[in-house]
Amino acid sequence: MAGKLKAAVLGATGMVGQMFVRLLEKNPWFKVEVVAASERSVGKRYCEAMRGGGTLGEFSEETMNLEVQPLNPKALKDVDVVFSALPSDVAYKIEEDFAKEGFIVLSNASSHRMDPDVPILNPEVNWEHIVLIEDQRKRRNWDGAIVTNPNCTTAILTLSLKPIFDRFGLKRVIVSTMQAVSGAGYPGVASLDIIDNVIPFIKKEEEKVCSESLKMMGSPEKPASFKISASCHRVQTIDGHLEAVFVETEEKVKPEDIVEVMVKFESEPQKLKLPTAPSPPIVVRFEEDRPQPRLDRMAGDGMAVVVGRVRKDDVFECVKYVVLGHNLIRGAAGCSILNAELLKAKGYL
Amino acid sequence: MAGKLKAAVLGATGMVGQMFVRLLEKNPWFKVEVVAASERSVGKRYCEAMRGGGTLGEFSEETMNLEVQPLNPKALKDVDVVFSALPSDVAYKIEEDFAKEGFIVLSNASSHRMDPDVPILNPEVNWEHIVLIEDQRKRRNWDGAIVTNPNCTTAILTLSLKPIFDRFGLKRVIVSTMQAVSGAGYPGVASLDIIDNVIPFIKKEEEKVCSESLKMMGSPEKPASFKISASCHRVQTIDGHLEAVFVETEEKVKPEDIVEVMVKFESEPQKLKLPTAPSPPIVVRFEEDRPQPRLDRMAGDGMAVVVGRVRKDDVFECVKYVVLGHNLIRGAAGCSILNAELLKAKGYL
Amino acid sequence: MAGKLKAAVLGATGMVGQMFVRLLEKNPWFKVEVVAASERSVGKRYCEAMRGGGTLGEFSEETMNLEVQPLNPKALKDVDVVFSALPSDVAYKIEEDFAKEGFIVLSNASSHRMDPDVPILNPEVNWEHIVLIEDQRKRRNWDGAIVTNPNCTTAILTLSLKPIFDRFGLKRVIVSTMQAVSGAGYPGVASLDIIDNVIPFIKKEEEKVCSESLKMMGSPEKPASFKISASCHRVQTIDGHLEAVFVETEEKVKPEDIVEVMVKFESEPQKLKLPTAPSPPIVVRFEEDRPQPRLDRMAGDGMAVVVGRVRKDDVFECVKYVVLGHNLIRGAAGCSILNAELLKAKGYL
Amino acid sequence: MAGKLKAAVLGATGMVGQMFVRLLEKNPWFKVEVVAASERSVGKRYCEAMRGGGTLGEFSEETMNLEVQPLNPKALKDVDVVFSALPSDVAYKIEEDFAKEGFIVLSNASSHRMDPDVPILNPEVNWEHIVLIEDQRKRRNWDGAIVTNPNCTTAILTLSLKPIFDRFGLKRVIVSTMQAVSGAGYPGVASLDIIDNVIPFIKKEEEKVCSESLKMMGSPEKPASFKISASCHRVQTIDGHLEAVFVETEEKVKPEDIVEVMVKFESEPQKLKLPTAPSPPIVVRFEEDRPQPRLDRMAGDGMAVVVGRVRKDDVFECVKYVVLGHNLIRGAAGCSILNAELLKAKGYL
Repeated sequence: MAGKLKAAVLGATGMVGQMFVRLLEKNPWFKVEVVAASERSVGKRYCEAMRGGGTLGEFSEETMNLEVQPLNPKALKDVDVVFSALPSDVAYKIEEDFAKEGFIVLSNASSHRMDPDVPILNPEVNWEHIVLIEDQRKRRNWDGAIVTNPNCTTAILTLSLKPIFDRFGLKRVIVSTMQAVSGAGYPGVASLDIIDNVIPFIKKEEEKVCSESLKMMGSPEKPASFKISASCHRVQTIDGHLEAVFVETEEKVKPEDIVEVMVKFESEPQKLKLPTAPSPPIVVRFEEDRPQPRLDRMAGDGMAVVVGRVRKDDVFECVKYVVLGHNLIRGAAGCSILNAELLKAKGYL
Repeated sequence: MAGKLKAAVLGATGMVGQMFVRLLEKNPWFKVEVVAASERSVGKRYCEAMRGGGTLGEFSEETMNLEVQPLNPKALKDVDVVFSALPSDVAYKIEEDFAKEGFIVLSNASSHRMDPDVPILNPEVNWEHIVLIEDQRKRRNWDGAIVTNPNCTTAILTLSLKPIFDRFGLKRVIVSTMQAVSGAGYPGVASLDIIDNVIPFIKKEEEKVCSESLKMMGSPEKPASFKISASCHRVQTIDGHLEAVFVETEEKVKPEDIVEVMVKFESEPQKLKLPTAPSPPIVVRFEEDRPQPRLDRMAGDGMAVVVGRVRKDDVFECVKYVVLGHNLIRGAAGCSILNAELLKAKGYL
Repeated sequence: MAGKLKAAVLGATGMVGQMFVRLLEKNPWFKVEVVAASERSVGKRYCEAMRGGGTLGEFSEETMNLEVQPLNPKALKDVDVVFSALPSDVAYKIEEDFAKEGFIVLSNASSHRMDPDVPILNPEVNWEHIVLIEDQRKRRNWDGAIVTNPNCTTAILTLSLKPIFDRFGLKRVIVSTMQAVSGAGYPGVASLDIIDNVIPFIKKEEEKVCSESLKMMGSPEKPASFKISASCHRVQTIDGHLEAVFVETEEKVKPEDIVEVMVKFESEPQKLKLPTAPSPPIVVRFEEDRPQPRLDRMAGDGMAVVVGRVRKDDVFECVKYVVLGHNLIRGAAGCSILNAELLKAKGYL
Repeated sequence: MAGKLKAAVLGATGMVGQMFVRLLEKNPWFKVEVVAASERSVGKRYCEAMRGGGTLGEFSEETMNLEVQPLNPKALKDVDVVFSALPSDVAYKIEEDFAKEGFIVLSNASSHRMDPDVPILNPEVNWEHIVLIEDQRKRRNWDGAIVTNPNCTTAILTLSLKPIFDRFGLKRVIVSTMQAVSGAGYPGVASLDIIDNVIPFIKKEEEKVCSESLKMMGSPEKPASFKISASCHRVQTIDGHLEAVFVETEEKVKPEDIVEVMVKFESEPQKLKLPTAPSPPIVVRFEEDRPQPRLDRMAGDGMAVVVGRVRKDDVFECVKYVVLGHNLIRGAAGCSILNAELLKAKGYL
């Protein structure tokens, strides 16, 4: 274990927090030394404080026995990096407290995502936005940093769009989602609401998909200018968001052109061989009925997105396809861990 | 029961066939006298021949004890109207045999839908297409007729689009569906394929949605010319197809304009007060999370569609909404029964 | 509506409370005049205060617009009968307050069930226990009364056991349950806990099944003396508890003997033709794969239990069978309404 | 790969067949050289012939490309061991054909299980029954052998009962099951039959649980004499059978005695350190709500059973508990692979 950076996970008892801890148990560069959570959990053993304990499977004995710490930056001097799975309402201030104290905070919370000097990083898509950290430090006069990962649906969507955007340009994107219940945390969606049912609404999700996608796919200074619209729905899958995407490109393309750029796509994380970087980041399948959440969500250990049914669309006279990603891994904790690896590779950690 | 027209149901043992029988048990104008099916079932009591027996609930003693008849028009002299729930592969010829023998066949099969002289009738949408029957009789030189109902997804979609089309014109429509397992019949979708899963493919569904919608929303002579594209997905609901719709109209509109024309919408079936006509045909809900399949599929006894989340769309700079309908009722058997009622009201029966 | 008794429903905003209101909308003897709930809901319109609103379907306009009242007996002078769906922790004191004030309280809460002077009434099973009211009034020196219905699982089980007990005597009963999620209220069971899963534990359920069954099947003075053991499990059904029952009778019996007494069974509610009394109370099915929750839970409008697979058991050398009942109707609100009807028929109301 | 025994899998395209192939891909002692199936599949690539392809996840390229062979022992000269996942109706004769040709057949089919000279082996429970092979060879005059694994429910049940039986004796066992849909193969259970439902019937399952358990827990010559009764039900889980067990022992015991013998239990496969032998074979959990299928079915890589809720039972005045096992691994393919490892360790292979 010598040489691993010491990590703290804030909000470690929730669904995404647990996924951070779980993924970090196998990470070669980071080791969880601190799990922190709200007052309710402080002082308990981690395994007793977890919500919906065990839904994500077993943890190591050592992890289970960690004592939950308070969300206090002063108390965490001996930590190299901080992952935040805090709920958005409390994340705003606490994450700033940690940044002021000099910590680099990799956050899954939405609170700071739309701040102009805070990057929303999905490394294959916009690793160059990392430079916003400099701007942020100057403006805010702190030594730490806040770096966010996008909303789960956005992370999956933008990764699939990136090679299209780079090669052919994007004019219009329409996306309709079928999202897993784990995206709502624990206890989250009541079983009475989802058995034999679909819920055609996820609070603020459609807005996030649009604003975050444009921010991420633009330059660090300026959002992208394509048009985008989303309709978001909750279905009865445990993990894995499926998205039906209709795309109009700047340049005229055929489905096979889209397939080609997706298959060949790789980006900075793959070039740097970051431990969590999936290879390939986009898995293209050619069966008529894939991707499927249960069968495909663990592609690339949950860090790849799986694209299928790339076909001609008659409205945009362009292309439509279906994309799937693991909402808790590529769409949340895994993405922030990849961000941390990128920061380390680039000398920020 | 005096005065009721005598009905036969072809393919009565399948899912849609059972729904025909079930709905006709309560219909004031028609009475099922004959249930007919393939060789395998002929001679059995209806209750023993049903596939997945009981999924749709109980039938009357009289119905249960009907003896299944062969699919032979010669044997059915004493019947006034024929409903067909035959599988598409066998429907083509058998339905023609019945039409030649002088029967009016109301069919749920897709075999004849795209024939230019066969109407695809969703009465609130295109009851005027009824005139194609004359054309059909002349061309084919028969006294009977074949009248189809649209594919389930199309029936629901076109009903929601009709008031928009009439008032504002349609330029482009994108629809992404979340369809119930009953749409695949019985046994249909294997439980192993759908638990904790979504299947992003339904054979020929996307093609049907597009071609049928354009045929139906045009004049009897010529299809409509708006552009339409669909992505179809199977989710784990029993009944009720949910569709996310993105619309661009000819004329500039606001969401409240769309709501207004939907709420006020009524058509020939409502004016004629046909027994199966829902009133209103389009139920608009204003909660942020409706319609939901389990809660809303029985609106208007399964004959209404329920629209919700009518809101601004930034891609078409127009409107997006969600619509739900019962796939076996408005989307199949109920629609053909309403067609039969229309034919009777218009003197064809 | 003239002549209907005026009813109040305490705890009207929860799952069982909503079911009380819903069933009473159609009841010929009672009419809900008051919905009462905790501080959080007081003053709101009923439709806004309901938890998981709409899960049970639509209510009448009049009902939806009722203003939620506080749980205060002084404020309800003009009410003839009180139904309680209060959570057990608060029910204890509040129900006593109402009884002291002279109200007859029909309660679904478990708080008072095991009090020796409070009947647990499942009318077909132990309507004679109604006499405990006299005892209760003397002991407690109040004019009102508290009458409880059994726990959902117990209500279903005891109804199926009653004709066996009466005719052949019971020595030992083992029951293993598969219970619906609605039994846990709303939001109740998290979807993440039940999709692709079974939870083999329901708090205090096994204890209740045993102690309540013995109290109910004994005389008003003394519990029955047969042995009983339960194992309770939550499965992914919305409504309808299924129970596998293994029975040893005092007298030697064959499966057909059991079937016979079940089929012929009727009790006081049937004789009195109480409006909510199902006829027959026990539906016996002979298919090899029934009863099934989705297909059979509404038998007798949810008030009957459905028994199937009555067959020889090799351990007790007696009989085993499967029984199903609607947990929110026969197992909760419907049972208390039937109790109220019994009280009225017997002159207590 | 040098030194691995060459294996053939008969009926390789079904659910259990695929699980055999999948588990053998990781087995250090055996390597699948031949996949064989019915005429329909012969000559196809294995990945094209699989039913419900992909439900069990991905296979290696090499495996995917195997050409499906006919079910003909003459054609398989170069194979050391044969695993059979054939349907019971065809297994009877084909397995005998292979045994006559000198092959040792490890079978999941029920056809030969109750033959007196064929062992039903669940190695931790009755590895000594291996001696029946000698008897079988003499009687049948062949050099091969047929060795079966028990029915899935039985495999899980008997493993949990074994330490109790050995230490305290068994008088009576009642078991009520909640079984996963994968136990019915593919396509198996229709989604329309199991969504929001439980099916309280599995063909011949209750009979198998009883007769197989007694045969296995007796001596090779004579079945055990305790009494046993089962009620079997299908619930909506993908994998993992959960069983509620009520036990009466010969000797008086307390729950903690049962826990102790379970926790300490190990048997021949553990002593021989067979590669597929789980250690421990019985995992005892002490949470009040475990085991749960989704969380616990992969314990011991699917080869362990997980026991929980060991508690006092008031009917037998003994003990009741819940046990879970993976129906396709411990309950089918995994068990036969462990049998093959046992045979190899004992010199039969």
